[in-house]
Formats: sequence, C-alpha cells, structure tokens
Amino acid sequence: MPERTAASRLRLSGLCFLLQILNILLFAVFVRYSTEGSPGQCPWQLNCSRRIQDSGFQQPRFQDSHVQVLLSFGLLVAFLGRYGPGSAAISILIIAFAIQWALLIQGILYFFLNGKIYVGAQSMVSADFCTAAVLISTGAVLGRVNPVQMLLLALLEVILCTLNEYILLSLMGVSDSGRSLTVHTFGAYFGLMVSRALYQPHKDKRKREERQDTGQQTDFFAVAGTIYLWIFWPSFTSTTTVHDSAENWAVLNTYFSLVASTVATFILCPVLYEESTPRMVQIQDATLAGMAVMGMAGEMLVTPFGALIAGFLVGLISPLGFRFFTPVLRSRLKIQDTCGVHNVHGLPGILGALLGTLLTLLATADTYGDRLELVFPLVTPGSRTVTYQALMQLSALPLTLLLAALGGWLTGKLLKTKLLRGSPDAQSMENSVFCEVAEEGCDPGASSKELGTSTLV
Amino acid sequence: MPERTAASRLRLSGLCFLLQILNILLFAVFVRYSTEGSPGQCPWQLNCSRRIQDSGFQQPRFQDSHVQVLLSFGLLVAFLGRYGPGSAAISILIIAFAIQWALLIQGILYFFLNGKIYVGAQSMVSADFCTAAVLISTGAVLGRVNPVQMLLLALLEVILCTLNEYILLSLMGVSDSGRSLTVHTFGAYFGLMVSRALYQPHKDKRKREERQDTGQQTDFFAVAGTIYLWIFWPSFTSTTTVHDSAENWAVLNTYFSLVASTVATFILCPVLYEESTPRMVQIQDATLAGMAVMGMAGEMLVTPFGALIAGFLVGLISPLGFRFFTPVLRSRLKIQDTCGVHNVHGLPGILGALLGTLLTLLATADTYGDRLELVFPLVTPGSRTVTYQALMQLSALPLTLLLAALGGWLTGKLLKTKLLRGSPDAQSMENSVFCEVAEEGCDPGASSKELGTSTLV
Amino acid sequence: MPERTAASRLRLSGLCFLLQILNILLFAVFVRYSTEGSPGQCPWQLNCSRRIQDSGFQQPRFQDSHVQVLLSFGLLVAFLGRYGPGSAAISILIIAFAIQWALLIQGILYFFLNGKIYVGAQSMVSADFCTAAVLISTGAVLGRVNPVQMLLLALLEVILCTLNEYILLSLMGVSDSGRSLTVHTFGAYFGLMVSRALYQPHKDKRKREERQDTGQQTDFFAVAGTIYLWIFWPSFTSTTTVHDSAENWAVLNTYFSLVASTVATFILCPVLYEESTPRMVQIQDATLAGMAVMGMAGEMLVTPFGALIAGFLVGLISPLGFRFFTPVLRSRLKIQDTCGVHNVHGLPGILGALLGTLLTLLATADTYGDRLELVFPLVTPGSRTVTYQALMQLSALPLTLLLAALGGWLTGKLLKTKLLRGSPDAQSMENSVFCEVAEEGCDPGASSKELGTSTLV
Repeated sequence: MPERTAASRLRLSGLCFLLQILNILLFAVFVRYSTEGSPGQCPWQLNCSRRIQDSGFQQPRFQDSHVQVLLSFGLLVAFLGRYGPGSAAISILIIAFAIQWALLIQGILYFFLNGKIYVGAQSMVSADFCTAAVLISTGAVLGRVNPVQMLLLALLEVILCTLNEYILLSLMGVSDSGRSLTVHTFGAYFGLMVSRALYQPHKDKRKREERQDTGQQTDFFAVAGTIYLWIFWPSFTSTTTVHDSAENWAVLNTYFSLVASTVATFILCPVLYEESTPRMVQIQDATLAGMAVMGMAGEMLVTPFGALIAGFLVGLISPLGFRFFTPVLRSRLKIQDTCGVHNVHGLPGILGALLGTLLTLLATADTYGDRLELVFPLVTPGSRTVTYQALMQLSALPLTLLLAALGGWLTGKLLKTKLLRGSPDAQSMENSVFCEVAEEGCDPGASSKELGTSTLV
Repeated sequence: MPERTAASRLRLSGLCFLLQILNILLFAVFVRYSTEGSPGQCPWQLNCSRRIQDSGFQQPRFQDSHVQVLLSFGLLVAFLGRYGPGSAAISILIIAFAIQWALLIQGILYFFLNGKIYVGAQSMVSADFCTAAVLISTGAVLGRVNPVQMLLLALLEVILCTLNEYILLSLMGVSDSGRSLTVHTFGAYFGLMVSRALYQPHKDKRKREERQDTGQQTDFFAVAGTIYLWIFWPSFTSTTTVHDSAENWAVLNTYFSLVASTVATFILCPVLYEESTPRMVQIQDATLAGMAVMGMAGEMLVTPFGALIAGFLVGLISPLGFRFFTPVLRSRLKIQDTCGVHNVHGLPGILGALLGTLLTLLATADTYGDRLELVFPLVTPGSRTVTYQALMQLSALPLTLLLAALGGWLTGKLLKTKLLRGSPDAQSMENSVFCEVAEEGCDPGASSKELGTSTLV
Repeated sequence: MPERTAASRLRLSGLCFLLQILNILLFAVFVRYSTEGSPGQCPWQLNCSRRIQDSGFQQPRFQDSHVQVLLSFGLLVAFLGRYGPGSAAISILIIAFAIQWALLIQGILYFFLNGKIYVGAQSMVSADFCTAAVLISTGAVLGRVNPVQMLLLALLEVILCTLNEYILLSLMGVSDSGRSLTVHTFGAYFGLMVSRALYQPHKDKRKREERQDTGQQTDFFAVAGTIYLWIFWPSFTSTTTVHDSAENWAVLNTYFSLVASTVATFILCPVLYEESTPRMVQIQDATLAGMAVMGMAGEMLVTPFGALIAGFLVGLISPLGFRFFTPVLRSRLKIQDTCGVHNVHGLPGILGALLGTLLTLLATADTYGDRLELVFPLVTPGSRTVTYQALMQLSALPLTLLLAALGGWLTGKLLKTKLLRGSPDAQSMENSVFCEVAEEGCDPGASSKELGTSTLV
C-alpha cells in the first residue's frame, strides 16, 4: 500500500506546517518578552504576589535561569531514553510542538495582560512541566498511534493539563511544587484512558510475539536515562520551590527517595523473577517512581527518614504493579499500557498526593517554624487552617483523576475517528517493541536470553 | 606497507610531543593566572572597559564561572556525537591541543600585558569558541585527512580564526556574541576551502560505495548529540552576553529558534524523501542550524516570534541544501563536504549575520529601551549611529568569508604537500563512512535498510 | 546448580532488605535536616569555624548547592561508563547504599550534636566523595566478587575511608580538597589489597580467554564517560574549595592537567603498541589520571604551566604502568587489577600528594598573597610554619597507604570466608570481560580486531 503510506507521510508534513504557522501567528499577535518593568513577571492588576505564589510559580531568581531551563530539558530528554531510539524523532517533534503550545495556553491563563502574553524563563519552565505530562501520556500508547495522532493528543492534552493545573494551583491553592498530581498522575491516567479508547482486539494481540532481542539497546538507553534522572531531576523538581531553605530539603528528600526505591527494586526483583539483579529499565522505573512520589511531599517532609520510607515503599509497589496489575489492566480493563506508565507515574503520583495530604494535616508551626508560611503560603492565622489546606490537597486527587480520565477518554475517541486513524507506519510499530520490554519488567524468558548475548555483536 | 604505517604512527606521536613541549614552554614563559588585582581581567593601560566590551568578552560574573566552563565543554563534546565513535579519539586530541593553543594566541591579542598573558575563566570560554570553529572545519574534511594533517589544520586555523575575531569584535566593534560569523561561518567556509584544496579525483570516488550499515550507530550518537545541544547550547551561546535581562532573551530566542527549526525538518523531510519521519542526524542538523542562525541575532531580537520565524526558515533551508546544494558542491565545485557543514553551519551563519544586520538597522531606543546600550555598547549619541553599526555588521560578513576562504585554501595547499600527505590510515578512513550518512540526509536506500534492522543485534 | 543460584539470588535480596531497614531505622533515630539556626552547619560547642575548615568542608554557598550535588553525581555516573552496561545495575546499587551509609558514618564524625546528625547539601557532597572511593575499589575486583560481597565491601570501606579522611583532614589538618589521597589513593590501594586477599589461582587463569569482541561496547561507554569527566569533574573537584579566587584556579588547573595528559596518551600509545591512535578507554584513563594528580595540588598551583607539566607526566606514567607494571602486579604480586585502578587512581594519587607536599614547602606569602591563608588556613604566624604543614602533607601519604592496605586485606579475607563466597553469577562474570579490555589498554591483538569490525552490526 505505497500510496497510502505516501498520503500518511504528507499528512504529517502538512499538519506540522499548519501547526507551526499557527504557532508563529499566535506568537506574533500575542507573545512578548517580559521586561523588568513589564507586567509579565508580576501582573499588577491582579493580586499579584498572592496569585503567583498560589500557582506555585514563585519568581525564579533570574541568575539561576540558565540552570533552570537547562535542567528542565534534562527532564524532557530523560524520557527519550525510556522510549528507545526509534521513537526519539517523534518524541522530539512532540516536545518541540508542545513547548510552544503550552507557552501559549499557559500564558493565556497566567501571564495575560492587555491583550499580550508576557513570557520569561519561568514561563519556559512551566511549559516544560506541561510537556512532561504529554510525554508521560504518550508512553501509554507508544507504537499504537501514528505521529499525526500523537500531535493531536499533545494539542488536546496541553489544554486540559493546563486547565487542571490552573484549577488546582491557582483556584484551590493546592501545594504541589514537584507536580505529583498535575504532571505524573494527570499524565499517566490521561494516557491510560486514551489507550482504553483506542483498544482494538486483533491488533493488540499480534504484537506480543515481536518482543525479542531488544534488551541490549534498551539497556543502553536505560543506563543513560537513569544517569540523567539522578543528575538532573532532583534539582529540576525543586525549581519552583525557591524558598531559601525549603529548596534544599526538596532536593535532598528527592535524593533519599530515589536511593531507597532503587534498593527496594534490588530486594523485590529477585523474589518476583528468576534474575539475580534487576535490569536497567527496572532501575530506571524505580528512579522515576521514587521521584514521582516526592513531587508534592518533597518540600513538606522535615525529616530525611520520611523520604527513605516513602521511596522504599514506592520502590516495592512499582515492581509489584508490573508483575500483577499490568496483566489485569490489559486483560480485564482492556488497557494496554505500553511503557507501564501506570506503575511508574500513576501509582507513585497518587501515593505522593496522599503523603502530601497527610503531611499537610500534621504540619504545625512547631515542627515547621518559619518554613510553614513558605511551604503553605495560604495557611495563615485567620485565613486558612491546616485542616482546610489538607482537605484541598486531598480533594485535588479525585478531581485530577476525573479530569484526566474524562479528557483522555474523549481524546482517545477523537483519535479513533476514521479520518485520523491510518495505520501506524513501520517505524512507529517498532517502537512498541522497545517499550514492551520495559513493561514486562524482568520477565525471565526475554531477559535471560538478552543478557546471555550481552556482547554487542 | 607496514613500515609506512609504523612511520605514520610515530610521526603523529612525535608531532604531539613537539607541540605539547612547545605549549608547556610558552605557558611557562608567558601565561599567568589573573588575580583580582591583576591586569588580566581588566588591562588598565588600555581603555579597559571599552576594550573588553568591544571584544564581546564582558566580565563573566565569577560566581557562574563553574557553569560557564562546564557549558562550553557541552558544546565541544556535542561535536563528538556528530562524528561517530571512530573519530572521537582524534576529535579529543584536536580539542586538547586547540584549547591550549587558542589560549596562547588569543591571550597575545586580548590579555597581554608587561610580557605576560593573564588568563582566567573568560579566556577559557573564548578558547572554547575558537576550538568549536576548528571542529566545524574538521567536519568538512573528516576521513580525508590523517591525524597529523588535522593537528596542523588546527594549528593554523586557531591563528586565523583569532585574527578574524579580533578584527571583527575589537577593531570594527561588531556585535556577534553568539558567534554566527566568527565561529559558524568562519569554521564552515574555512573547512570547505581546505576540502577543495585537498580534492583528489580517484580517492573521493572510491568512498561512495562504503557507506552502508552504519545508521544504527550514527543514530545513537545523534540522539545523544541532539540532547546535549538542547540542554547546553542555549545557555552556552549566551555566556558572553551577561547583561542582566538581555541574557535571558538570548537563551529564550535560541530555544524558540531550535524548536521551530526542528518542526520545519518534520515538514520538509517527508516531502523531499520517502521517509515519514526524519532520521535523528537530520534533527540534530536542524538543531545546529537553528542555533547558528541565532548567534548574532539572539540578543537583538525583542519578540519571540522573530526567533520562531528565523528558526523555521533555516529549518527549511538546511534540508534543501543537503538535497540540492551538496551534490552541486561535490560535482561542480569539487568540494566534498563530508559532514555537510555548509548546510548546518555555513548557510545558517550567513543568514544569522544578515538577520543581525537587519535588526541592528531597525534598532531604536523606543523598542530597545535600556537594552540598546547593552546590546550595542558603541551606539551612543555622538559616537556611532545605528546605521553605521549596521554597516559594520554587514561588512563583517564578506570580510569573514574572504579570510576563511583564503586561509582555508592556503591551509589546504600546505596540507597537500608530499611531506604531510601520507595515506589516512584504516581507522580514519572508516570515520568518513560514519559521516557520509549524515551528509546524505534521509537518503531512502540507506536508511530504510537501517531502520528495518533497527534492533541492535 | 539452579538451587544454589536461587539461594544466591535471595541472599542478595535479603541483604538489601536488612541493610535498607537498618538505614531507615538509623536515619529515623539520628538524622535531621540542619536548619539555618540549627547546629548542623556549624556545631557551636566545638571550635566550629576551625573544625569545619580543617576538615575541608567549608560552608558551600547555598545558592550553588543545586549545582554542587548535581556535579557530584556526574562523578559517580562517570564510573558507570568505565564498567560497562552489564555491571551498571550493581554499581547503582552500591551507590544507592553507600551514599546513605556514608551520610551516617560521616555524620557521626562531623555533624553529630546532642544525639542527632544534622545533614545538608555539604553532607551529601562529602558522602559522594566517599562513594567515589568505594567505586574505585570495586574497579579492582569487578567480576571476581558477587553482589553480596560487593555490598559488604562497601559497608566496610565506607567506615575505613571516613576514618582515614577524619584523621587526615580534621586531626592532622592536611589540605586535600580535591581528594588525591582520601579518595583516589585510598580507594585504589584498598581495592588492590582486597583483590590480593581474594586471589584464587585456578579461577583467575580461566578468565583470560573470554576477553574478546567487546571493544565496541566499551568504546561507546568510554566516549560517554570521557565526556562526563571533561564536563563535570573540574567543577566537582573544586566544590570544597570555595575561596573566591582559589576556586577558579583549581578548576582551570584541573582542565590544564587533563588536556596535557590527553595529549601525552597520544604520544606514548603509538610507541608502546601497534595502534596509531589510542582507544577511547585509554583516553578516559588519561583523563582520570590527569584529574587525580590535581586533587591535592589543584588549589595550590599558582601558574598554569605547572598543571600542564604535572598532567603531561602523569599522562606518560599511566600507560607505562598498564604496559609494564600491571603484568608484574598480576604475576609476581598475585594482584589482579581488573580495571587497572592502580595506574589510573593509585599512582596519580601518590604523585598528586607528592606534588602537593612540594608546593606546600615552596609556598611563600610572596607568591600566594592573600591566597596563602585560604589554601592553608592553619599556616598563620605563630601557629604553624609552612615546613610543618608540608611535613603533615607528606606523612599523610604513608598513613593513607597503610590504612588502605590493612583495611583492604582484612576486608578481602572476610569476603573470602565460606559463608559469603558463592560463585559470582553469570552476569557479574561477564562484567569482568568488559573491564579486562580496559586493563589491557591498547593491546594490539584484541583491539585491532575490534577496530576492524567497528561497525555496530
């Protein structure tokens, strides 16, 4: 079917062209750089200092903006490692489009004034966060959608993700600086529902046989991805927590969490599977899970052992999810989770939100001292009690799940329409192979074979 | 011919020894660290603050010197990704030698006082820039010269590149903080003229058949290289623009440009070739081109959509250059551009210089505000008009092209002398294979084969 | 022997579980974050400012803590590159455990007050240093011990390494900010003595035949590792030298040293072997050696050419060690140095310590100016003379060697007990293969074969 392939090629080309021209036009009309005196950094008509703090976007110290934007890309590219080289091109396209689009959509909600959007380094960072949610979602459907569908998924998810973020952070005053809810949980469940809506009995069965001989390549990228995460993420996750001392704690808590979850993987994998040591993809999963759980709680935890325990538990839950829950998802709920985002982002995100709620409830001026008003700027005598803040944090969880599920389902249905379907071409089919290995975890059959032939030849 | 190989081996060894001893001696006699009170950071006899600003070397804030030097190496190593693992060793040798040499040569022009060169973090950064130009040039001749020739090329190019930089930045007062002209354009055309001077009909034909089966490896390094560029370059390119707010804009403009040029590659590649998605080397090329075009204009652009448009256009021109102009270069002009540096550095550099000239012409105190004197320190009432500055920017382009072409031609002729020629040994031959894939772009035959066998086995 | 393998699997799992629970309990009882007013950053009962400066842990500027912790991980992961992908999983386990354990052990010596250990960013950095020593030691025995033995090695070495560091830095007032002695020398000789104690005639012979066909893979990781080292280590090595101007010099000296040692490798390898250019693992070794030699002397050198000479010499010594000394070590002293840590860390560390002693002896207020009291805080009129300080620096070397050798020997004997031995499983066996290539350096037989088949297929 060469004609069909040619048509599909040009369709992607044309869509990219349209979207990029659209972006350029919208940027030309609306987007300006914020200067120091301009309203971009602090919209004066609104209750600025409140608003910006509410939304979690404290003013970054501009001397660090270098490092901040740098780090944020560290996050983005770590995902590339996860998806293998075949899908890298598409992932970069998604990143390139989603960053522009997120800057526009978020700008309308956060930085809009007098008909202009004023952007700066902090807009870039929050656009990166949103792009991360999109990348997580694509992890659930990778190899089952064509690039055109992926672009549309990004188009829609950026809008919904920004809306969810706006409701949580700005309207409800939820404290979620490391984005357990707005990135990890939202991204994972959005993607899972898209996957559910795309379910096709025949196609998804045929895939199972192709998964072989790919361990080597996945391992290379998993080593690189894990390294990136260890280096970049703890600092990244705390870019929006710029309180002098709180910042350090978020970084250190994240380190402790990922260290403990890594050790936990070494404990559970030999028990669940026949391997003596976990494979690199599993260690990368543990790293991701250990970071997702610290998203909300990172700046709230005041003792290091809390982070160790949280990381340890999530490091045990994530492999158990791969072993027992992913098959149930697939067979019963007809949700094929190509890269296992449910275990790596979904569950840890929920646990992080619950932990954050618990910590909010326990927060007292006694244990927090000056930090209390930095971590919970809305909790001040006469305005909000700790209990009310905890209630907000807790109710943000079902709200996020609802928005993600509903948005994902509708997006999936839309992508399934005849117009867009087309068959995923040869290349993106192959991507699914890379990722199913990650999903399977340390499945003895596949991996022992790969490790046996571990020379590159 | 084992004796000949042995002689060639020892010749490289001996040359390295001589050059390193020379460097050590020159360092011992001339180079000292600049202390805070010393003249290194600010030669007091000269019109210091003027001089240093003219040359584009504003005093780096020393608290950031950590990050600055770090970032500059990010740039250097990104080139390794481009050239494949076989040539990595030689590239690192070139880097190690060229940095020392550039420090000496640049020191004589910029930091010389009382018979001593005073170096510091900013000397290192500008030596890195010069090394980058050398690496770009080697990209045009990779696989066609032996390591001894490469070292001599570096020896000569560092001198000429520094001279060009000195004329442009110090004497003419051109504003080129991201080095569109002095690094990208100079490096590309210098390398192309060396390639022209080295032209040998028989040899260069034989190569064409060897280009196969290397896509996998190139892809790995291209993914890594693209990631490095996205993370490190935008910050690097703005290390020498340390004005408080201008700095941020250069970073953001560079991001916007590379994002748009990446999308442009996805638009054009399916039209030009049979592939539905571009290959990773093409995306890396788009990233490089998108950055080269922002070199001069990065700190001048005051609206984000300008960067989007510039990146978009250069992202379209670069693949067109690969498809239509590189074959013409090869067959008509007898210039074999091994890694396609003309499309990735040469053309985008020229476009960047033209864009910079245009922006200089349009610069008014109205749109720039306080930024005007930061971006164009020489444009002050009574000293220089904007028109005169634009004229300087424009005339810097033909001057750079002339110096690069002349220098490259003479260097190439010198390298071709019997004494130095020798046959490139087996290893460096192989490098040419890696790079020709990059040059070919998304040539359907080669890449579909590779993508089909995309498992690492 | 499937039962035995199953038992070995569960033994690792169980040990990880025990150690992690132990860590969590100890953290819960002892470890708290240091707040600004808390005693963690400056234990007030002790002679704080003296104490902390003595121990080499000056207060990091907290605005840079982001970058500091980030960089330290750059160091850790560079080791992964060295050991190949097969051993990456075990290396990460060692890192994850050793960081927690080092934080506890170092906390008891440095940050203990009122029954609590107060940790912060600087604790993390010094725990990273200690973990680096453990990783160096594992390089000597990689592939010959099973993961359980490795964990116990880490458990014991962290204690001894911290003790050695405490004696040197705090009690004797030795200046060793880049850790030539406490990390490089200690780690290398500790590992070598463990290797000696583990010597088994039959086993170690059998291995020799397996070393083949792995050059490609090693090269990939060596390129990545070298890049990491160039980018991250110079800044990392100077994290604990936070004097305003001294800091820059340590960074620049380290760069000059690694540049010169890289060139030296290109000089010597063609002479020693049949290759025209060194292989990437050798360049990585030169980079490591050039950095180890600058550990102590980095902040003491006041002229760049000193760093060039030191790097040049160590770049010559390291390949000579591989060629002539490693075989002697193996055959005569029965020490199998799997990854050649003696040439890369041991010898350069010793040379660095001797160089540091010499520079201390030569230090005068004349050449150092204000820097004298920054680099040698104890050398003040009336307290310590430069000669006494030099004597301390010198005597630190035999003390470190003694402690490392004794500790390594005892640790090795303990690991050899029946209880722990077990056969290293299939996977870790394979790791030895990766590393022996690195050890062999540019052994003509092995590498020419690999370079000949340098396409990835």
